[in-house]
Formats: sequence, C-alpha cells, structure tokens
Amino acid sequence: MSDTTLTASVPLRWVGPLHITGNVGDIETEVPLATYESPLWPSVGRGAKISRLVGPGIVATLVDERMTRSVLVRAEDAQTAYMAALEVDARLDELREIVRTCGRFVELIGFHHEITAHLLYLRFDFTTGDASGHNMATLAADALLAHILKTIPGISYGSISGNYCTDKKATAVNGILGRGKNVITELTIPRDIVRDNLHTTAAAVAELNVHKNLIGTLLAGGIRSANAHYANMLLGIYLATGQDAANIIEGSQGVTVAEDRDGDLYFSCTLPNLILGTVGNGKGLDFVEENLTRLGCREEREPGENARRLAVITAATVLCGELSLLAAQTNPGELMQAHVRLERDNKTAKIGE
Amino acid sequence: MSDTTLTASVPLRWVGPLHITGNVGDIETEVPLATYESPLWPSVGRGAKISRLVGPGIVATLVDERMTRSVLVRAEDAQTAYMAALEVDARLDELREIVRTCGRFVELIGFHHEITAHLLYLRFDFTTGDASGHNMATLAADALLAHILKTIPGISYGSISGNYCTDKKATAVNGILGRGKNVITELTIPRDIVRDNLHTTAAAVAELNVHKNLIGTLLAGGIRSANAHYANMLLGIYLATGQDAANIIEGSQGVTVAEDRDGDLYFSCTLPNLILGTVGNGKGLDFVEENLTRLGCREEREPGENARRLAVITAATVLCGELSLLAAQTNPGELMQAHVRLERDNKTAKIGE
Amino acid sequence: MSDTTLTASVPLRWVGPLHITGNVGDIETEVPLATYESPLWPSVGRGAKISRLVGPGIVATLVDERMTRSVLVRAEDAQTAYMAALEVDARLDELREIVRTCGRFVELIGFHHEITAHLLYLRFDFTTGDASGHNMATLAADALLAHILKTIPGISYGSISGNYCTDKKATAVNGILGRGKNVITELTIPRDIVRDNLHTTAAAVAELNVHKNLIGTLLAGGIRSANAHYANMLLGIYLATGQDAANIIEGSQGVTVAEDRDGDLYFSCTLPNLILGTVGNGKGLDFVEENLTRLGCREEREPGENARRLAVITAATVLCGELSLLAAQTNPGELMQAHVRLERDNKTAKIGE
Amino acid sequence: MSDTTLTASVPLRWVGPLHITGNVGDIETEVPLATYESPLWPSVGRGAKISRLVGPGIVATLVDERMTRSVLVRAEDAQTAYMAALEVDARLDELREIVRTCGRFVELIGFHHEITAHLLYLRFDFTTGDASGHNMATLAADALLAHILKTIPGISYGSISGNYCTDKKATAVNGILGRGKNVITELTIPRDIVRDNLHTTAAAVAELNVHKNLIGTLLAGGIRSANAHYANMLLGIYLATGQDAANIIEGSQGVTVAEDRDGDLYFSCTLPNLILGTVGNGKGLDFVEENLTRLGCREEREPGENARRLAVITAATVLCGELSLLAAQTNPGELMQAHVRLERDNKTAKIGE
Repeated sequence: MSDTTLTASVPLRWVGPLHITGNVGDIETEVPLATYESPLWPSVGRGAKISRLVGPGIVATLVDERMTRSVLVRAEDAQTAYMAALEVDARLDELREIVRTCGRFVELIGFHHEITAHLLYLRFDFTTGDASGHNMATLAADALLAHILKTIPGISYGSISGNYCTDKKATAVNGILGRGKNVITELTIPRDIVRDNLHTTAAAVAELNVHKNLIGTLLAGGIRSANAHYANMLLGIYLATGQDAANIIEGSQGVTVAEDRDGDLYFSCTLPNLILGTVGNGKGLDFVEENLTRLGCREEREPGENARRLAVITAATVLCGELSLLAAQTNPGELMQAHVRLERDNKTAKIGE
Repeated sequence: MSDTTLTASVPLRWVGPLHITGNVGDIETEVPLATYESPLWPSVGRGAKISRLVGPGIVATLVDERMTRSVLVRAEDAQTAYMAALEVDARLDELREIVRTCGRFVELIGFHHEITAHLLYLRFDFTTGDASGHNMATLAADALLAHILKTIPGISYGSISGNYCTDKKATAVNGILGRGKNVITELTIPRDIVRDNLHTTAAAVAELNVHKNLIGTLLAGGIRSANAHYANMLLGIYLATGQDAANIIEGSQGVTVAEDRDGDLYFSCTLPNLILGTVGNGKGLDFVEENLTRLGCREEREPGENARRLAVITAATVLCGELSLLAAQTNPGELMQAHVRLERDNKTAKIGE
Repeated sequence: MSDTTLTASVPLRWVGPLHITGNVGDIETEVPLATYESPLWPSVGRGAKISRLVGPGIVATLVDERMTRSVLVRAEDAQTAYMAALEVDARLDELREIVRTCGRFVELIGFHHEITAHLLYLRFDFTTGDASGHNMATLAADALLAHILKTIPGISYGSISGNYCTDKKATAVNGILGRGKNVITELTIPRDIVRDNLHTTAAAVAELNVHKNLIGTLLAGGIRSANAHYANMLLGIYLATGQDAANIIEGSQGVTVAEDRDGDLYFSCTLPNLILGTVGNGKGLDFVEENLTRLGCREEREPGENARRLAVITAATVLCGELSLLAAQTNPGELMQAHVRLERDNKTAKIGE
Repeated sequence: MSDTTLTASVPLRWVGPLHITGNVGDIETEVPLATYESPLWPSVGRGAKISRLVGPGIVATLVDERMTRSVLVRAEDAQTAYMAALEVDARLDELREIVRTCGRFVELIGFHHEITAHLLYLRFDFTTGDASGHNMATLAADALLAHILKTIPGISYGSISGNYCTDKKATAVNGILGRGKNVITELTIPRDIVRDNLHTTAAAVAELNVHKNLIGTLLAGGIRSANAHYANMLLGIYLATGQDAANIIEGSQGVTVAEDRDGDLYFSCTLPNLILGTVGNGKGLDFVEENLTRLGCREEREPGENARRLAVITAATVLCGELSLLAAQTNPGELMQAHVRLERDNKTAKIGE
C-alpha cells in the first residue's frame, strides 16, 4: 500500500437555499452537493426554490434516532440460546452501566434479539450524540459481548457483527426496529406553483408516484422502498459533509407519498435510516469542517442537536431532488431534453436516475 | 445555486497490487480507494497480498453485461397492455434499428415486460460499450418509447422510468434479469496462508459466512444479498474512477461463499450488478483520467474491453476487503483492536462495517 | 403410519354466480369455496353479485402460463459453471427433444440460469397441458439433469431442486420470470353500485388501497405483493378443486389496483403465480371431479383450455373477495359488525384477514 | 350463495408417532396430515421414525407467542402522527384496561408503531389463550382504535387493518417483531442413522442446505426464508386440526439449519410465525375435535397450554418432512424414484416441493 494520501476531488456546488421548519428548528440554508452528475444541482435547486415559495417551507419531523450493532453468539442449543436471551434482557441495567464506561456520548437505549437454531442474534441500540456512531456502537458492543460471554453460560463468540445491525446492506430490519435518524419531510405546494414551477399537476405527480415508485418498485422486488432517486441526493450531501457514504445504501430505502389535495400537491419523503453525524470520521478535513460550519452544524449545542440539524437538512434536500425528478417524469421527453441541454452546458449529463 | 464549482476532496490511496486472472485477462495492478474510512486501505491491502501469494491469484469470471431502462406505459385495460407487449416483442428487429440511430455504442439486446392491472412495464437491455450506459440507455429508451406510443394503439405515456430498471434501488430484478457487469471472483487459499496471513482457519471463515452473511442477512430481511461490506470497497473505487457512486446500492447486493476444502479456504464473491464504465460522466476530470490510465483502463481496445477490465479489478478489490473483514471477525476483539491501533496511527478509525 | 385413509371434511359452499369475460371466454358460474372461515362465503358473494350487475362482468386476461423447475449443479469453479450454462443454452433444441420423451403434454419453452460462486442454477420452463405440472416438470427436469451431467464436463449433481423454481415459497423470481398462470382481472363499477352495494366510494377504496395494500405491505417488508387477502379465496377454491393448496403461498403474491375514475371504481387484481390444474393429483376424488365438472372445467377441449378456464374463474373469485373486504374496511366498525352478525348466524366468524 | 354446506373431503392419515421433548413437554404422538399429496405421509413418517430412534427425540423450544393486529390512522401531518404515537405509547396502561373488557383470554402485551408521511401504523400485540386469536385481536383492535380516535386529536380512521399485522402475506415484520408461536426444533442424528435411515451423510445434507435453502432461496428473491417445503407439512396439519390454513403463508417463512458435527447431523427448523389454536373457528367440527383430542390438545390445562402443545407438535412435524426431503435430494434420482414407486402404490404422486 502506498503511504501517500492523494484525493478524489469530487465536484461540489452549493444549492438553494432551502427553507425548512419542523420539530428540529426553522432553518434557511444552502446545501453542498458533491457529485459527478452535475444535473443534480439544478434539479435540487428547483425543489429548493419551491421550498422558499411555500409558507412553512419543507416541514421536517424527526421521529427517532439510534445507532445499532448486532452481535452473534453461538449457543449449545436453542434452549440455551433462549435462556441467554432472557438473561441479557433481565440484565439491561447492568449492561447500560458497562456501556457508560465506553464513552461520554454513548448510551444503551434498546435491545432486540432473535434466535435461529442454536444461533442468538443480539441487537443493541445506542444513542451516540453528534456522531453517526458506528465506532461507538462497535466499541460498546465489543464490551457488552465480552461481558455476556464471561457471565452467561453455554454460549460462545460468534461475531462482533451478525449482519442483523444492519450496516450498509438493504434490509427490512432497520426500518422496522430503527437505525439512524428517522425523518419525515412534507411540502404542500399550491396548484399554481405546481403548474408554473414544476410544469405539471398534483394529479399527475400523485399518479406517477403510485405507478412508478410504489408499484414499479414492488414489481422489481424492492424491499421497504418506494422512491425515484433518494440515493443521488444522499450521496451528494454525504460526500460534502464527510459522512461514510456507503450508508446511502440503507438511506436509499424510503417512501415517497404524493397526494392531489384539490389541485394542491402534498409531497412527502420518509427517510427512516439516515446515518450521519457532525463529529467523528471524515469530519477533520478542512473542507468538511467548512461545509458543516456553513450549514450551521458546528455550533455549541446540546449533544445531538447539530447532527439532528444535519439530518433534517439532508432529508429536505432529498425531498427537493425527488420532487423535481418526479415532476419532470410526468412530461414525456422532459428528462431527455433537460439532459441534452445540461450536457451542452456542463459537458456532463445525467439527471436523476 | 452557486455558479462556483468547488470540490469534496476525498482521501485516496493506492492499495495492492492485486493479482487477477480469468476470462478478462491476467492483471496485476494497484487499485485506488477514495474513502473517509482509512482502515479500509490496510484491510484491502491484506487481501491483495494474499492474491499475490496464491497461484492464479483471484480468478475473475465475467458472465454478463448490459444496461437497462424500463419505461412505463398506461393502457386502456390489461388486454390492451397485453396486446401492446406482444406487439413490442414482435417488432424487436424494428426497435433494434431505432436504437442504432441513437449512438455508435448502444445496442438493444434484450426485452422483458410485466403487466399489472392496465400498466405495462417494458424493460429494455442494451450494451453500451465502455460506458456505464445510463445516458445511452435513457436516450435509447426515450426513442423507443416515442416510437411505441406513436405506432401501437391504446397506450399512453406513463414514465420514462418505471422503477423496474432498477437504478440505485436495492431490488431483485437486477440480479435475476441482469444489469451492469456480472462478475464472480474466486480465490483458493492454502491452509498455511489462511493461518499465517489471516490468523484464522478455513472452517472458521466458512462457518462465519453461513451464520453472519447468509443467515444474519436473511433474518434482517435482506433481499438477494449475503455479504459483510461490499459497499465499502465499491464506494472507494467508484469515487476514485469517476463512477456514479449511487450505483453502489445495487452493487452492494452480492453473495459471499466460503468453503473449507480440506483446510484450504475457497472464497468467492459474486457481484451481479456492477454498474461502471471508463468513459462518460465523471471521466473527464484529471485525477480520474490518471487513475483509469494507471489501472490500464484507457488503452486502445475493442469497445467494452476497458470497462470489463475495470469491472474485474473492482470485483477483485471487493473480494480482498471482504476476505479481510470476515477473517478478522472470526477472532473476538480483533476488529476492535485493529480499530484502536489504526485510530492511533491515522487519527481516523472505522474498519469494514 | 396408519394404513387407513380418513378425511378432513372442510365445509364448502357454492357462491355466486360470477360473470367473467376476457380472453379465455365468457363464463357465468358459481364457485365452490371450502373453508373453516364461513364469512368468506357472503364476502365473495357480494363481489360476485356486482360482477353480474356490471356490463362485461369481471374481465380476465390470461397473459402467461408455464411450470418451472430449477436444478442445481456444482461446477469445479465459476468459469466451468459459465461454460456449462452457455452449453445448455446452445443445446436447447436437443433438450427440447429429451423433454418430449417425458410425456405427451410437457414441453420445454424456456430456460434461465444464474451462477453464484461455483454453483449453477438452471431454471427450466415447461407447458404442461391441463395439469398444474409439478410432476411433469420434475420428471422432465430429472431427465434433463441426467443428460446434462452426462454430456457436459466439469459439473456434478447438486439438487433436483435448487429453490430457484420457486415452489411454495414467497420469492421474487416467480413474478419476474413467470410460474403458473398469470391472470389479470378488472372490474369497473359505476358510482351508484359502489354506493349502494359496497356502501363506500371509489375515492375511499382507491385511497385505502394505496395506504394499506401498497404502503402498509411495503412497510411490513413484503415482497412483490400488495393485497388484503388473496390467500383466503385461493385456499377455498384450491381445496374445492383438488389443487395442492400449499401453492397459495406464491399465489398470495399479487397486486390490487384501485382507481377513482370520475366516481366510478376501477378495481383490478393481478395474480402472476396461479398454480393450478384440472387433471393430476387430487383430481381423482369424486367431489373434486363433480366440482370441476360443475365449473365446466372437465369438457372436451384442447389441452390447457380447461386449466385456463379454472385459472380465470379462480382469479375472478379472488377479485370478488378482495373488493368486498376493502370496501368493508373503508368504513369504521363494518368489519367487526359483519363479524358479530355472521358469528351469530353461523357460529363461526372470521372475515377477510 | 347456496344455503347448503357441502364438504371438501381431503384425504387424511395419521403418521408417526413422533417423539418430542423440550420446554413445552415430553410428547409422543402420531400426527394427522390432510393432503392431496399422499407421498407426504411416508416422507414425514421417515422423519418421525428417526425422532424415535434418537435419545431426546426432537427438541422443541417455544420462545415467543403473540397475535397482532395493526390499525391505520391518518393524521393531518407527520408531526400530528408523531404526537399521536407518543400519546398511545404513554397510555398503554389505559389501553390494556380496554382490551381486558374485550374478553377473558385476550391481553395487550406489546405495541409498535411506524409513521410514513402523515400515516400512522399502530401494531398491537396480544396474548389470546388457546385461540390463534385473529378474532380476539380484531375485536380488541377495534375497541382500541375507537378509543384512540375519540381521545387523541388530529387523527382519523384509516383502516382496521393496515397490512402491517401481517396476516396471510409473506413479509419481514412478523419474524422481526413476532406473530404467532415462535418454535425452534432440533434433532441431532448419529452418523449411522443418517446413513442407514436417510441414505446420506451429514456433510451432504449440510452442503445441500447451504446451496439450496440458503443460497437458492436468496437468489430467488426470498424474504426471511430458507427451507424446502415447510408449507406442505403445515397445510396437512392445519387442515386436520381446523386451523385457518391461509396462515401457512407466513408459516412457510422459516429457516432450516443443518450442520455436520463430526459425522453426526445437527438438523434444525425455526418457525417464527406459527399461527394456530385449539379453540375458535373450525374447531367445532367433529373430526377436528377428535383429532385435537387424540393429539392431547383438548385437555384441561392452563389457558394457552393446549395451543403450545399443538405448536410444538406442528413444528416437529415440519422438521420430519423437511429432513426427509432434504436427505432425498442429496441423492440423484431418489426423489423421482420415490415418486414413481408411490405413484404406482397410491395412484397419486407428489413428494415435497
């Protein structure tokens, strides 16, 4: 391995500003998107503009946050695995104490288990302050696992990760049990703005959403997902803010809902698995520090507040891009025309999917 | 939107070299990995070293390549949708001609459809030379859709993308019908190298693979996926080579197989959905050009050859990182110790998941 | 094992008649439903009545039919597996001849393969006349497998079934590649019939379908499925007509679409995996013979015609029950009231789910 | 609808006896299987014989039991949905009291919720004594829903079932959060019994299980499932004991684990979603009453004890059939030969899948 650290310099632009309200705060900010797909910038920009035109802007509701790690232990048999699971459950207070010794910001807040044959999967939930929490969770899980193996008979080490966490894999468990921030964004757009700024109608967007995102993804064999391209916006903002962008995999699993409300468009993106943070890995780089600062995510606040701010900004950015692409796809040829025009302008050319 | 293009400069190192053989060629090359998670470098490096110690190195078999786009049309009813599907199927030669007008490198090679209620999802398969092919496929699909709507009665425009493609979403259809390069990598490691270089045994890795990757992912509700962290390696090489890294989402769906063969370890990673190219978006940047050149992927070759070379290099890199992490996880505490050591050395600290 | 064959006598009633049109024929028939859940009878009956009130009745479009079996072979390595797959593909004519020797009604019509590591899954598609075709397909696959193993080097027996068929398991492959009959049923119900007979509105049913069947199932982690209770109707008619009712598992994977068309209700059920037949196992029993005869499915017809008739009758029955339950669930308390009333009348009481 | 209730008389035989131990009791009993697929009888019989040859027999561990119903409410927006969810959670004691008024045997034991856009899915868990509990759960959920709508502002009726329960659909939520009985069965078979009675080896069964049940199902796009044919055994015993056999759909989702332990075969079936009861719908029929009595499931016991007994008997029966089929599939041609022989003997002929 070379000792020289080079860089991959991904083009980045600031887009917006977006207007966001909701239970994390009233926010008006531009957002940085790093991407090789430059049409993403005007696409998100179009949504951002609408967020500024509409009363409360994008309303973001953060409904959960946790980081998880599942360890795997092997028992002599199912009965022993079952006894061990009951024992872990009975000792949660004790385990909570052990986790407290692992760091100032990490706390054990939940536990779930599942047994298959003689295998016991123990999934622990933690809060991790402003960090995305991979490392804190692994460190804590390591301590918990060592303690459990030492004090509960009949079981042995299986793995520090049993893939039931689940990290960087698209599964159902994260959405059902929670992992990362769970943020719902909503925007209700008056009929005339839908017509003038999105060149479409609420009915057309609502119908497309059912046919494409809900039924199309279902037929493709999707798992807990119904959207056009959350992944694009997530990648852009994750790279720009020093996140582990491989977490766009679970991040990409979310649900777009669009409703025709008497001609106005109710548009919502639910992102149950937003893994991100404002401290930790990747955050020490100068441009990351600058970007986070400009986003207002490096302020002196209660632990977790900066990360929650980043979460709702990210989720709102996703809504902007999703709205823009869906609106474009209601019109035959629009996507391709945008593509050709942007290609000419930018010498690069992929929009949306 | 700002007019200034900045950059997100993701740290990058060259790792290896890897030794690769198989049906795309005999390759020995270092690989560039751009990541905020620096422990990824020594992790992949460990696998790369083993690839050089073992006879044929990593054997990579490319078994398929195609890019797809599904369009959605709405029919008056199911019977009309069915008639339209039959008609499209009957006219494939005609459609092939239309696609030929869309570009020198794009060719229609397959077609699949599915009907639900009055909705008809038409999924077209293309070869796209050395490009990943998103744009070519969209351009061709746009032309096909226009032609189909003009010449087949009873149907109307639904969407240029019906999410049955499927792009940047984790689904089952890509693996079953194909999308991107489908590459299988294999490495058989003698018992003493397993012991000395991976500090484990073939039996331990094989057992862990069943318990964690196969059963653990299954319990998590995964879809067509059984691996520890393909996403990490894919992200690193995608960023370094100018790929649309949002395609790690389908790329992350693959299957690790590990077998104890009389003490030797047979280790294999199957990546059915590798979306990548050596020309097109993102490839004009200087560092990308340099990286692709150093990888030997900018040579004068038959169209598609450079992209296939990049595909097997990428798949082999995935194997290196997957092998290294799984081996580490067979030993209690090893992951955490590596983490702490690397954290001290690199001031950054996440390995694997 | 006891030598005495007893019976489980499942209560059965004839419901209807239903009126069905479409590409299999114009059919008016009652349908037999065997079930321990007697409220199913009036529930389906309500839908059947509407099918008679509406012009063309339920329009059923059969768009595909095939039975499949996947065999598994183990190759020395991926490259050998790939060569074997190409070889099988090249010899399809030869394989077709072998299948012809396996029976008068079985014919090889398709082939699909997938490789993972050194494992090769070969999925063969057959037409099987009026039989559901499990046995014909297994017999033919056995002959094909023996021939392949004898004539293609480097591969050995893995399994006569590799679970990629897929039989009696809920997966994505059956819907994507086809297995059983694929039938789409549609019924457009005028606004006043929706109001008078279903006590609801098209808008309410359409909205419920999106919220419950599409989004609810998605959140639950469903796979290629969006319906309320196809399984109930399928079980009833499968038991009544001598089918292997374990095939309700893939049968239960289907998609309900409901649309408000200016106050009229467009209602559609797509059942891509209907496994059934009118000859073969279970069909020799007297009551089965009587039921099939009364359904008009034991006539002298071209091979396959009787089974296709049974398929559309089954699919239309599913629509009747699905429509009735969804309509009921739009009204708070209606399901429970029906339940209590029927419980009093029938001394038994479960409706729908 | 006809007023006459007829019957579908499904052939039934008693198979066994099976020997079962574990945390529900020491049981030796024959089991009744109603099926049109007569080869199922000797197949299960072979497994049953082995259960009698091996020390503790089949060890069954029941690790959970609950019945669930999810209701759907629509909120004005996500924030209101979130407030409502918190409110429901805060009032669980109050809700528990309401459920107590719904019946002697029903008790609220858990609650889970999920929000998407402005939709709130409330999933309630109940114990239901010896009943499978569909009706009790629906009745209780109806009361809870009425109470919630009356006392929590900003929400309105969505559906009495939001498909997040999930009933008779294959999803991930049931396995992760629990629904029905969760039973793990294990049998360790000495090497010579594997050879003499199953005509195979532990290594061959273990390898087949990985290649077919784990990898094959994964490639097929299965969801939380890895087995050959649980559905067949479940259907047989469900019909024989008056269960709602449409619940084989979630029942069919389970995981087979097979390990070669120094030549002995460790074989295990985990069935996380066994929906069944010994009272309620279908149980009033004479033959059902007789069958349940003969199974020892109509004794005077604590509420729930009879149902738990039936659950472990059912799970053990599943193991017998699964073991027998997998063993057969390790040998080329054996399945087909058994088929032909049994066809001749029984004039009917499908075994396993």
